[in-house]
Amino acid sequence: MDDAANLIKRQSKLTDLIKQHGLDAVALNAGPSQTYFTGLHFHLMERPAVVLLAAGKKPIAVLPDFEKAKANDLGYDMQVVTYDENPDNWAAAFADAAKQFGAAKLIGVEGLRLRVMELQYLEGAFPGAKFEQAEPLIAQLRMRKDASEVASMKKAAEIAEAALAATLPKVKVGMTEKQIASELVQQLYAQGSDPELPFQPIVGAGANSANPHATVSDRKVKSGDLLLFDWGASYNGYLSDLTRTFAVGEIEPEFKRIYEVVKLANQAGRDAAKPGAPCSAVDENARDAIEDSGYGQYFTHRTGHGLGLEPHEEPYIRAGNSLKLEPGMTFTVEPGIYLDGRGGVRIEDNVVITENGAETLTSFPRELQVIG
Amino acid sequence: MDDAANLIKRQSKLTDLIKQHGLDAVALNAGPSQTYFTGLHFHLMERPAVVLLAAGKKPIAVLPDFEKAKANDLGYDMQVVTYDENPDNWAAAFADAAKQFGAAKLIGVEGLRLRVMELQYLEGAFPGAKFEQAEPLIAQLRMRKDASEVASMKKAAEIAEAALAATLPKVKVGMTEKQIASELVQQLYAQGSDPELPFQPIVGAGANSANPHATVSDRKVKSGDLLLFDWGASYNGYLSDLTRTFAVGEIEPEFKRIYEVVKLANQAGRDAAKPGAPCSAVDENARDAIEDSGYGQYFTHRTGHGLGLEPHEEPYIRAGNSLKLEPGMTFTVEPGIYLDGRGGVRIEDNVVITENGAETLTSFPRELQVIG
Repeated sequence: MDDAANLIKRQSKLTDLIKQHGLDAVALNAGPSQTYFTGLHFHLMERPAVVLLAAGKKPIAVLPDFEKAKANDLGYDMQVVTYDENPDNWAAAFADAAKQFGAAKLIGVEGLRLRVMELQYLEGAFPGAKFEQAEPLIAQLRMRKDASEVASMKKAAEIAEAALAATLPKVKVGMTEKQIASELVQQLYAQGSDPELPFQPIVGAGANSANPHATVSDRKVKSGDLLLFDWGASYNGYLSDLTRTFAVGEIEPEFKRIYEVVKLANQAGRDAAKPGAPCSAVDENARDAIEDSGYGQYFTHRTGHGLGLEPHEEPYIRAGNSLKLEPGMTFTVEPGIYLDGRGGVRIEDNVVITENGAETLTSFPRELQVIG
Repeated sequence: MDDAANLIKRQSKLTDLIKQHGLDAVALNAGPSQTYFTGLHFHLMERPAVVLLAAGKKPIAVLPDFEKAKANDLGYDMQVVTYDENPDNWAAAFADAAKQFGAAKLIGVEGLRLRVMELQYLEGAFPGAKFEQAEPLIAQLRMRKDASEVASMKKAAEIAEAALAATLPKVKVGMTEKQIASELVQQLYAQGSDPELPFQPIVGAGANSANPHATVSDRKVKSGDLLLFDWGASYNGYLSDLTRTFAVGEIEPEFKRIYEVVKLANQAGRDAAKPGAPCSAVDENARDAIEDSGYGQYFTHRTGHGLGLEPHEEPYIRAGNSLKLEPGMTFTVEPGIYLDGRGGVRIEDNVVITENGAETLTSFPRELQVIG
């Protein structure tokens, strides 16, 4: 839990920033930004949980009555308007909150987080107000991690790596992807991950390793397969997100070749990560390594994404992103080569920009290992 | 995976229904409804994944290019428009899809699922179109489970119950809520849950058992505590959601009293579940049992919620909900009494409405057990 002083500091940074951009207020829906700025923990469910913030005003939250206790232990003063179990009464709670909060004509929202439901309640509560995308402003603050946030991410990486290390000896030819994923999840908990994992691990065997976002299936691991793990742990709410790919028994020569290319590309991407470099430079360096080997068309996605409280957040490591890297920014570097219907390789690490360059938070060996 | 014939049947039911209600099309965002009607599996992330459906038109999906393979194995014909990793190009993909799809002036959306991001892309692609809440129409179809959906839910209940049975003998005084939750999660996987759990289990000890949506903490279990588990498993994408409360050693007499009241209320709620009864009747019957005992003010939430592909869905079992129960509807009955700062009891079961009454899918013993 962030302490109250830190939360208040974050709130005042945000409300100053939105004021500079001409916004009267910001509405934070249940989720990571709400947690980051207010300390509240709500999941996005059928009951709305929205906080309004503005410079010089006390934060106000609209919450389910039976969960209002969550706002009591924040260590600072938050106004709370609650509603009961009948959705017919929810609009009135938003109207009441708006009345207490005062007029706002231009309200910042998170386009990836605010739903049509909450938008309609806010539109009803602030008649005539306009709602504008505030995600870039929020990202400016959340992107720059402090030392304690980075320490949590490092711990999340350690937990993930220990979990995979404990899982690999149990992987045998004939096991299904689901069985292996289940073992890995159990190890993530045994090694100390928070109850809420960043995402369900991907275990992709054979042709499924060539699908970058495969769903874990009942496919059995066979000798000659590439076996891909994309997994992470959570610590203090901060996440890790790694990928490693293994050879099951003897694999075909082209699989070995693409493995070495991806390993080089991963290194090349991380080498380009430093303060002042644009995000696109990291993507370009990794991509060049793959294109030079002739496999460019098989690297079908961006090189990485920001990582922190969310499994995907800013900064996005992609072509065309001119955002300059700064100390404290944390992201993945995860080039891959996917041979459709045959097999794929991805190697993913987590990186933090430092004053002079970058530190890789993940250290699981990147040499090709044979398992099973 | 639903087979193609079933998916096409579901789509035509939906498109007929929206047509009857004057809607030209429906836009399904990544999530359970999209999966239910199309067979696609996407998570709600930073990349939009939207499907448009209308009577007499081929479904069209806007998807990330590198994930388009997911649309290949559906067993029926879906048009796909893809976009690359640069968000600057995403609006054009939506515009292209709209052009191929044809004009639509009134488009149904899910208010709990569609975000401001996707709404803005749709507004851009269908200039002048209006977007209307279509959740109630979609719920009409999703609420009525067929035999195979109910069978999956029953299996999800069995997995959850076996997992708790395997966890309880390991619970000892001095363990933290987190340690117990981690053990329970491991058991859920060991017993065969899908990798994606319905929600992170709640383990609430002592005063935390009095918080209906507590976050799992480092609080240690003490003798005299009430210890509450709210957990579930997932099977074939269908969910279970149970709660049981236990006595750790000798508990105070009032805790025993409220336990018996909640047990009666749980039975009373389930007894009221039958075809033709309004949802409110189930709530009322359970609530009356608690009010008659003098604890009415400590039962602070609705009696239950629908359950299926989502942990909370329609029908909601609450006062004022006149929706009549029908065979195939599945929901929780979960009355509780919460003594603030001291302890709480909740007993939650899963129910399906049958032709003549209701069947309880969950069978974990409801007698007060002493553990630890």
